[in-house]
Formats: sequence, structure tokens, C-alpha cells
Amino acid sequence: MGRDERGVTPQQEDFSAWYNELVTKAQLVDRGPAKGTMVIRPYGYRLWELLQDELDRRIKDTGHENAYFPLLIPESYLRREADHVEGFSPELAVVTHAGGKELEEPLIVRPTSETIIGEMMAKWISSHRDLPLLLNQWANVVRWELRPRMFLRTTEFLWQEGHTAHTDEADAMRETMLALDLYAEVARDVAAIPVVTGEKTAGERFAGAVRTYTIEGMMRDGKALQAGTSHYMGSNFAKAFDIRYTSEAGQLELCHTTSWGMSTRMIGGVIMTHGDDKGLVLPPRMAPYQVIIVPIGRGEQGVQTSAAARELAGRLKAAGVRTHVDDRAQLSPGFRFNDWELRGAPLRLELGPRDLESGTVVMARRLGDEGKQSIPLSSAPELIPGVLEEFQAFLLRRATEFRDGHTVTVDTWDSFTEAVASGWALALHCGDPACEADIKAKVAATPRCIPLDGAPESGRCVLCGEASAYGKRVVFGRAY
Amino acid sequence: MGRDERGVTPQQEDFSAWYNELVTKAQLVDRGPAKGTMVIRPYGYRLWELLQDELDRRIKDTGHENAYFPLLIPESYLRREADHVEGFSPELAVVTHAGGKELEEPLIVRPTSETIIGEMMAKWISSHRDLPLLLNQWANVVRWELRPRMFLRTTEFLWQEGHTAHTDEADAMRETMLALDLYAEVARDVAAIPVVTGEKTAGERFAGAVRTYTIEGMMRDGKALQAGTSHYMGSNFAKAFDIRYTSEAGQLELCHTTSWGMSTRMIGGVIMTHGDDKGLVLPPRMAPYQVIIVPIGRGEQGVQTSAAARELAGRLKAAGVRTHVDDRAQLSPGFRFNDWELRGAPLRLELGPRDLESGTVVMARRLGDEGKQSIPLSSAPELIPGVLEEFQAFLLRRATEFRDGHTVTVDTWDSFTEAVASGWALALHCGDPACEADIKAKVAATPRCIPLDGAPESGRCVLCGEASAYGKRVVFGRAY
Repeated sequence: MGRDERGVTPQQEDFSAWYNELVTKAQLVDRGPAKGTMVIRPYGYRLWELLQDELDRRIKDTGHENAYFPLLIPESYLRREADHVEGFSPELAVVTHAGGKELEEPLIVRPTSETIIGEMMAKWISSHRDLPLLLNQWANVVRWELRPRMFLRTTEFLWQEGHTAHTDEADAMRETMLALDLYAEVARDVAAIPVVTGEKTAGERFAGAVRTYTIEGMMRDGKALQAGTSHYMGSNFAKAFDIRYTSEAGQLELCHTTSWGMSTRMIGGVIMTHGDDKGLVLPPRMAPYQVIIVPIGRGEQGVQTSAAARELAGRLKAAGVRTHVDDRAQLSPGFRFNDWELRGAPLRLELGPRDLESGTVVMARRLGDEGKQSIPLSSAPELIPGVLEEFQAFLLRRATEFRDGHTVTVDTWDSFTEAVASGWALALHCGDPACEADIKAKVAATPRCIPLDGAPESGRCVLCGEASAYGKRVVFGRAY
Repeated sequence: MGRDERGVTPQQEDFSAWYNELVTKAQLVDRGPAKGTMVIRPYGYRLWELLQDELDRRIKDTGHENAYFPLLIPESYLRREADHVEGFSPELAVVTHAGGKELEEPLIVRPTSETIIGEMMAKWISSHRDLPLLLNQWANVVRWELRPRMFLRTTEFLWQEGHTAHTDEADAMRETMLALDLYAEVARDVAAIPVVTGEKTAGERFAGAVRTYTIEGMMRDGKALQAGTSHYMGSNFAKAFDIRYTSEAGQLELCHTTSWGMSTRMIGGVIMTHGDDKGLVLPPRMAPYQVIIVPIGRGEQGVQTSAAARELAGRLKAAGVRTHVDDRAQLSPGFRFNDWELRGAPLRLELGPRDLESGTVVMARRLGDEGKQSIPLSSAPELIPGVLEEFQAFLLRRATEFRDGHTVTVDTWDSFTEAVASGWALALHCGDPACEADIKAKVAATPRCIPLDGAPESGRCVLCGEASAYGKRVVFGRAY
């Protein structure tokens, strides 16, 4: 708990405590009974729904179709791809009994669905005409977590997982990059998180993938958050599950597959990218309520301002603005202001008796230098959508400045150490997994990605001094 | 498999074979590897998404908020409500191992979420100001099925489950009936299924409920399908999970709770209410594609009709019509017509070279006496939304006539037996569970519900001759 019942520990004092207190006090989540599980409360779930809508629309617009595959996967399926089973084994939850009996073969609660979808793809694909096969699933998955953090690492989480099959590497790689672009766009345009896109080094690849790409955001403690990944699987899963097609030339060929996922983890990213010591700061495009109207006044005056607030809310909703009237008369205006600052509503409108008289309303942004401002009641529905758009853009700009201000190009180990203590280091690296492990052991930093847009550069590894790999600098940072 | 690769067994010959072949051939589902599980393919999942949209909007419009609760529930939670655990025990899937270890307490894969939501409600509710608490969850649930049928009874299915808490019985009963009304409206207005609403007899109640209400539809084999249920729990779960509130008078009181659910089973209801020997017949409001355009012609003519089809599809989509162009040139027009009849598209537009010349297109409804009709290409986007609405209304009318034609008011056991062989019997019943069991043993019929709108009537039980209960006739039928 923080200093008092309402407040949260300041970020500078203990970022981790700030986060843990905030997700509970803002009523986003609660702890579930089974280890590492979370209950997503309505305010938190609405954030997820709004993100889902944006992502689902883009997934469909790019030709993918949603489907649903079973939760319970026979254990033997996971064993068919050696790297895959090795990567996931320690995290599996296993159903051994069902219908009052012990099962002949245990069933795994899906940690991800490559295997069961691979099995079905093999059944559905026969000709090149069936390709590309572009599927997506919205689902819950379970990965047993020893050190859970709400949204960031939970035993069960919600996500979408895209799974596609293609005739060849070129087409599968186009898909892999398309999914990555789509994630970067949603992160930037919806969540206002300016992510870096890039490829993972071999040591950070998905279990069973040939290449893994990622979007990485910087949180306000300088750490990185991997907020979505896209994998080119080559023919690894096609071999394991016999996903083949007859080509135009009549040859039987192996498919090339991809998978890509974005999860409820993204909500943790929003919290840690924008939040401050007063609480959440939500980008308008993800905010359950974009505008909170607080009517002020007691007795007859309270009745009048409440009625005016509801009337205004009706006009704002008609203009497409998600609006909530907080007329909890038993709570002081100040308490209600603080409550919605804690819960991150982008805009607050205060409506008191004197505002009513003058036909105005006081507008306060959750963040920024603009202070309070009085605007005409009558034109609020025309003004506010623009103010929300500006606020959305402001958050992205602010996060970009923060990230750029905490990203340092370094060529010595000392400056590397200093950089990753509070942000990211752009460094040359030899590409040797042992050297990566050394860096992690020394300063807890890992290669987040080899950025797609990095300028060509070569030289010596920042730690071991061997020749650099990758032809460009690597983003290093501590990470969630 | 049916008679040939494309066709399905006629309903009259074997309704069950017709259904099983159709769900596979129409590419709605496929069998999953674990017993009784199903893969919902894109065409089937789109039906579910369209139903979800309609239901979710109504759930939100009536003041409910979506949330998400964990999949894995400690075994001890289920034991807290005695009737509940007794009802669900035989169907549970149990996780005994996770993270490489045996768990101290096994976890149940949720068969329904009353218990875990009850536990959280107890934590969240303290004052009468917190009530009513109106929650809904979209989720997967697992109930081990020994005799699975795709959509109707599957080991895992998708559903929404509403869970609400109230200060008293009157408010909880209002909610119970509101949910029932909402289901009846969705069934009628979206799925075109004219359901009967009513209360279940004691023997058919949900495990742990005080009263259970249901919507029942009649399938084309005369059997009933329970397509949604709404339960008033009294204070049973409130006692088991200690869900209490402080009243305005300052007293600590038990809450009254409700729960209600509608699932992917509803898709089975749509198939069996409207389908015929040619295949699916989808109500336009649930059809993934409301209109299929089939361009006809080879070579240059094919190029021209395909281009015109795409142009028309663009105009139809702009008019809000879900449209698909089937220009699979390797397949004959006849094959494509049959394919979309099998898959139940409400309207087909055939566009050949002569139609192009005359500026018309041939429109064919999936069902009905109107035959093919030539309409002007230019005005298709204005005409077709109306045609779809008429088709939606036609399906509801047809299903209502079928149901009414197969529902008989009976007062003798002979006519009861005859009625339930091909449809429903409206009969007086004594209300004795032993007599219900007798009826079930003799003719496999069960009391589907005591209809809400039944006229007051009393007399003698149709089987045992004892005085009738309920004050009205009961709907009896065989059921899925």
C-alpha cells in the first residue's frame, strides 16, 4: 500500500511498488486464487476491448480470418517440434483427469497454439490454391509463472495469435513483416507507445522460429517492454505437422509458416509508458471514458448541475466521445477529481453553478502545461474531439522524447553500463551468445532487438572487442 | 459421408447424419484431437462473431460491464455450494500438475464461473451503493462430454456468462427476466428462431439455482433445443461465498445473485431451425456473406463479368451488405451455386455476359417460392437491403409456422405420445419429479418449460391423473 489509502508510491521511490499499487487502486485488476492469475475488472477489461477492436479491424482488413482452436492439446503434439517443447515444457499446466477418470494421454492447457493449428493446417491445405492460409485466434493461454506481475507476466493471459501458411519463404516473410508493421501501428497510433521494431538475436528467438521480430517500448523507468512479436517459422512446423501443398507444377512441397501475437501485456505497457505519480494516464483512443464530467454544488444547485452534466454527456456521446458523469454526491469534488486522475481519464469537465450561469464549463487535461480552461458549454461537442486528438498526439510526443532522451549511443563498456542503468544503449555487438550472457550477468541488460531502421555500421563489440555482427548497432536494455 | 462428395443425407432419412455431415461440409467446424472438442473454422466463427456483436451490444446497453475471470479455479471453491458441485462433478477437467510440479490443490478448468466470481463479488461489494453489480464475461468453458455433438454438446464451448448481485429478490428477479428477454429477442430478431420462454421445472434447474428460466426453440426434426438460460440463485451463492452488503439502514445483508448464459450451441440451433436438404440456410443478420456474386463466362467474357462483379460488390459493401465474389474460374457456375446453397448464403447474384449487356443481374433467394428474378444492376444496392430484411422475416415466419404446426394441445396419453414423436405436446402435469421421470423413460420427452405466456388452466396430469400443478400447461418434447 502507498502512503495513504488513495495515493500511490512515487515512481522515483519505487517504480515496481508504484505499478503494483496502481493496477489495484485504479481497479484494473485483482489477484486470482491460482498462482499468478489475474481477474481483469471492468475498467481494465474495457481497455483491452478497445485495443482488441483496433487490432481486430486491422487483422481483418489485411485478409485474415478469425477461427477458434481447442484449449486442450494432447501432450504428444508439443513433442513434435523439438525446440518448441523444450522452450515451453517448464511452463505447462497439465490436465491429467477428466470426466471422473485419469486420461490415457495428458492434455496440455495451451501455452500457444502452433501445434494444434499446425495439425489442422495439414488437414485443410492440399493445393497451392489453398494458400496463403491466413488465420487468427483470440484466446486465453496458460504459462505457469513463478514471478507473476499483473498484465506483464501472468499465468493466464489473453491474446490474439495469428497463424499463417505460405508457399515459400518470400511470401511468409512478407506476412511476418506485415504483422510486425500492424503491431507497430497499433502501439503508436492507439496506445501512443513509440516502439522500436527489429529482429531478435538468436538467443531471444521464439521456441521453434527461424526469425523473431519484436516491437519494443521504453517504460518510464527506462526498461524495455516487448509488446508484440512476429515469427517466421521456416518449414519447422510444416515438417513437424506435415503441412504440404501441391504446387502449380504438381510437386508436393512443404509450407512456410508464421505466427505472431499481442496480448494483455500491452496494457501494462500503456500504464508504464504514460503513468505518473498521480496515477494512470490513458491515451484517448484506449480510454474507457475519454471525458469525465463532475457536477459541483449541493442541494438545488447540485440538482441543476447534475442535470446539465447529463445533458452535456448526451451531446458528447452523440459526437462519439466516451463520456461518464461522476455525480457521486457523497464525495467531494476534490476527491472525485483525484479519483479520475488516478484512473487516468484524459479530460475532466467541471460544472459548477457559476459555470452554468455563464454557459461555460471548466476543462482540465490529465497532463500538460495548459492548465484549466473555460470553454462554452454549447460548443463543447465540437471542441472536445479535437482536444482529445491533440492529447493523444501529445502523449506520443512526450513518450518519444522520453525514449530518445534515455537512449545513448555508446562505444565503451563504462558508458554502456551507465546507459542501461536508466535507459537503452545503442551498441555494437559481436553476436556471440556467450557474450550476450556475460552482459546479462554483469548489468542485467539484454539485446532487445537489431532495429530495422538502424544505419549501417561496423566496428568492435562493446564488451569483448571482437568484430561486430549484424552490420548495425543493437538496442540493449533491461527488460520486463 | 452423404450420397456423394457434395451432398448431404436428406433430413427425413437421418436428421442426425444430415447435421453431422453438414457442419463439416459447410466448413463450420472440424473435430479437435481431445475427446469432444471442436475446431471452429472461419466460416463458423464468423457466425459466432456476428451473434456476439448483437448480444454484446444489448448486454452493454442494459448497463452490464464485461470483465474476465481466471480459467483455473481451486477445487475447494466448487465444493462450497453443495448442489453446484454435485451437478458439475462428473464433467470436470482437472489440472493436477503445473510448472513441472504436482499442485498442492488441484485446479478445475472452469465449467462455469459462479464460484470464482462469487469469491470476487464478496471482495468488491461492501455497501448498498455497490449494488446492483452487473457483470458479464465472454469465455471458454470445459465440461467433459461423453456423447459430443458439434456446437450442441462439446467438451469445450464458447459463451457469455452474466453474473449479477442485488440487494433483494425483487431486483434479482427483474434482472433474471431481463436477461431472458434479451435472449428471446436475440433468438427471434437475429437468429430468426421463434423461441418459447418459460420456467424450468425443479428437475431441470441449474445446479444451485432457486429458479431457472429458458428459451426453447423447435428444430426441424421436432425436437427442442434449450438455447439460453437465466437463473435466480436466491442467496445460495451469497451464503457460500459470503457476498454481503451494508444496507441503508446499516444492517449487514446477504446479496441475491443471478447468472445467465448463451453459447456456441446457438449456432447448432440456427442450423437445425432453418437448414434443408441442400444445406445451411442462414438468417441474413448472422450470415458471414449475405450476398454471393457469381460471375459467369469464359475467357474475355469472364474477365468482364468478374470486373463487373467486383464493382457491384464494392457498391453493395458500401451499402452495408456483406458481399463475397466467388470467381473461382476452375469451378463451373453450377458447382459454385450448389456450394453456396450448401453454405447457406441468403442471396445469390448471377452475372453473365447477357446480364451485363442488358444491365441486369439475376437474383436467387436461398429459399422460398419467388424463383429467380432479374433486377437492374444500377439499383441493386438500393434493392438488396430490403430483400435481405424480407428474407430474415420470411425465415422467422416459416420457423414459427413449423413450430405451431408441430405443437399439439393434448389431454390423453395416446395423443401425448403421438405429439412428442414429431414435435411438442402442451399438457397438464402433476409436477411430481417421479412422474416426469416416468414420461422420460416411456417416450424420451421432458418438460421443456412452463411457458410464461400460457393461459391459466387446471385439470388432471396427462400421465398419472393427479391434480395438475403450475396452473397452466407445460411444454413437453424430446430435446437436444
